[in-house]
Amino acid sequence: MGYKFTVWRGQKDGRVTEDTTERPAHTGDQVYINVTHSGVSGTDLHFLSSGIALGHEGAGVVEAIGPEVKALKVGDRVGWGYAFDSCATCDKCLDGYPILCDKPIYYGITNQDSGSFATGAVRKESFVFRIPDGLPSEQAAPLMCGGISVFAPLMLCGVKPSNTVGVVGMGGLGHLAVQFARAMGCEVVVFSQTDSKREDALKLGASCFVTTKGKTDLTADVPSKIHHLLVTTNQLPDWDLFFPVLAKGSSIYPLTATEPGAQFALPHPQFLGNGTKVQSSMPSKKTFSDMLRFAARNNVRAVIECEPMSIEGINRVLDRLKDAKVRYRGVLCKH
Amino acid sequence: MGYKFTVWRGQKDGRVTEDTTERPAHTGDQVYINVTHSGVSGTDLHFLSSGIALGHEGAGVVEAIGPEVKALKVGDRVGWGYAFDSCATCDKCLDGYPILCDKPIYYGITNQDSGSFATGAVRKESFVFRIPDGLPSEQAAPLMCGGISVFAPLMLCGVKPSNTVGVVGMGGLGHLAVQFARAMGCEVVVFSQTDSKREDALKLGASCFVTTKGKTDLTADVPSKIHHLLVTTNQLPDWDLFFPVLAKGSSIYPLTATEPGAQFALPHPQFLGNGTKVQSSMPSKKTFSDMLRFAARNNVRAVIECEPMSIEGINRVLDRLKDAKVRYRGVLCKH
Repeated sequence: MGYKFTVWRGQKDGRVTEDTTERPAHTGDQVYINVTHSGVSGTDLHFLSSGIALGHEGAGVVEAIGPEVKALKVGDRVGWGYAFDSCATCDKCLDGYPILCDKPIYYGITNQDSGSFATGAVRKESFVFRIPDGLPSEQAAPLMCGGISVFAPLMLCGVKPSNTVGVVGMGGLGHLAVQFARAMGCEVVVFSQTDSKREDALKLGASCFVTTKGKTDLTADVPSKIHHLLVTTNQLPDWDLFFPVLAKGSSIYPLTATEPGAQFALPHPQFLGNGTKVQSSMPSKKTFSDMLRFAARNNVRAVIECEPMSIEGINRVLDRLKDAKVRYRGVLCKH
Repeated sequence: MGYKFTVWRGQKDGRVTEDTTERPAHTGDQVYINVTHSGVSGTDLHFLSSGIALGHEGAGVVEAIGPEVKALKVGDRVGWGYAFDSCATCDKCLDGYPILCDKPIYYGITNQDSGSFATGAVRKESFVFRIPDGLPSEQAAPLMCGGISVFAPLMLCGVKPSNTVGVVGMGGLGHLAVQFARAMGCEVVVFSQTDSKREDALKLGASCFVTTKGKTDLTADVPSKIHHLLVTTNQLPDWDLFFPVLAKGSSIYPLTATEPGAQFALPHPQFLGNGTKVQSSMPSKKTFSDMLRFAARNNVRAVIECEPMSIEGINRVLDRLKDAKVRYRGVLCKH
């Protein structure tokens, strides 16, 4: 006996199709999830014309559990991201970082048939995370990739509550970074091309909002130098503009995925002389649990635009994303 | 009353001149040092035609102390590097990192009249470091810049004794990196263009020596993937060659100074996907003390070529350096 559920896939023409799929029943340490919500991100646009099942920011309710499931129970709400499985034996798996596994099973890359744009999902217990009471599922979904991308560097890379955190870009990732950093006690400075999100940034916890378009010097705009700079934009910043507002010994986190062949470059003498660190921070499994609990406790909430989880809803939110009309994060909601 | 001593300066024609200089007497927290040894490094070549006093790897004996000196005594042996003073009030000074001070007094950059190619030096007590018994002064001198450059990342950036440390380049810095990392318990892999230093590297503690010239794949040569890669060469490595032998979550330390305008670039997708960190590591003051004690205790010794501290000796070692004939480190010794 298996499961039949609906999946939405990207197609060559850039539209989405709806299929019914059949999967084997859950076994061992797997759970079957009634998918209730999915975040929608730039990665979905990236995969839109590739023919694969879309979505990698899932939230739902456990409907059935395998005989080896240890902690989850039927009825638990869970979230999951782009990592589905790993070898469990390489050094990074042993260390709690299956996302850095040598042979990972990833959404989109090594697994192309199981997304969160779906009505159901079969997942291993150890790759889904219980959503704490008080954090709505439509909020948990966009945290599973957008949230963890900014929470991981803030959590794992030596950010101190006394530090100033700079956030470049005030979009899906940026507006979560502001909230997480503020909830950790940090001072937060947002850098954005234009003024349009100033009010939101200040409301969400930034103490300073700096527009960068046309600027050749930011030193007068930034009250205290930046210790940790999270770069959430597709384009890397103009480093000649940013190095003068970075504290000595500061860290830079480029968070956005890039195309094959792209180079990450920055001015070598400033990099050396400032004692700079540039880090690609990956979350451990525990970081996901920590993030969900932290968000629940500290009222970190994505600003979301909900659409129904249907072919019309999906195409509508993807069109808005293409046109850069999604202000923060689109979320699909099953009704 | 002041001091008269000899200094050696670089000149426009690329040769060295000998002068007698007069300095005010030491005051406050200063000490007067009889300079007995100086390391000679690529930085001295860099400054050779600039007209400034040369040398920033000093060792000597305290001959007189100011009234506010707290710990040093006449007769103590001390070493010093390129940092001479700092503002003592900025965040990095308060944190113990005057090398990252906003207004540092550095050899060559903000101080051009006081090097370790000299018979005497006046220094602040808090910017010189006592050389432990058992560590000869001719050994301490090259540690004050060459040694600290490799000890700082190994000490401050999360290197664990169970890690594999890669060292690119087996020269003045590289041969010290091998010894420090091995003494910390790490496995050490040396990458060098040619085979000429294989035997030395293995003797100093490397478990593996990999030649890179003409290679397009190193994976078969490297027994366990590299967690921390110290780059001691002037040229940055071919990253397409090195990324496949880096462990996931590994760190890269580019250690060599570069010309203004140079870019540090590496492949962005591999950087992100590997969870890589690129760090410019600067030592705290305490790191200098730790290094000297660690080197004494663990028998870390530079392989040195001694020349007399005289105009002939200095020109000879600089000529050998220009011709890349100094195998590891030249040291000037007062007789």
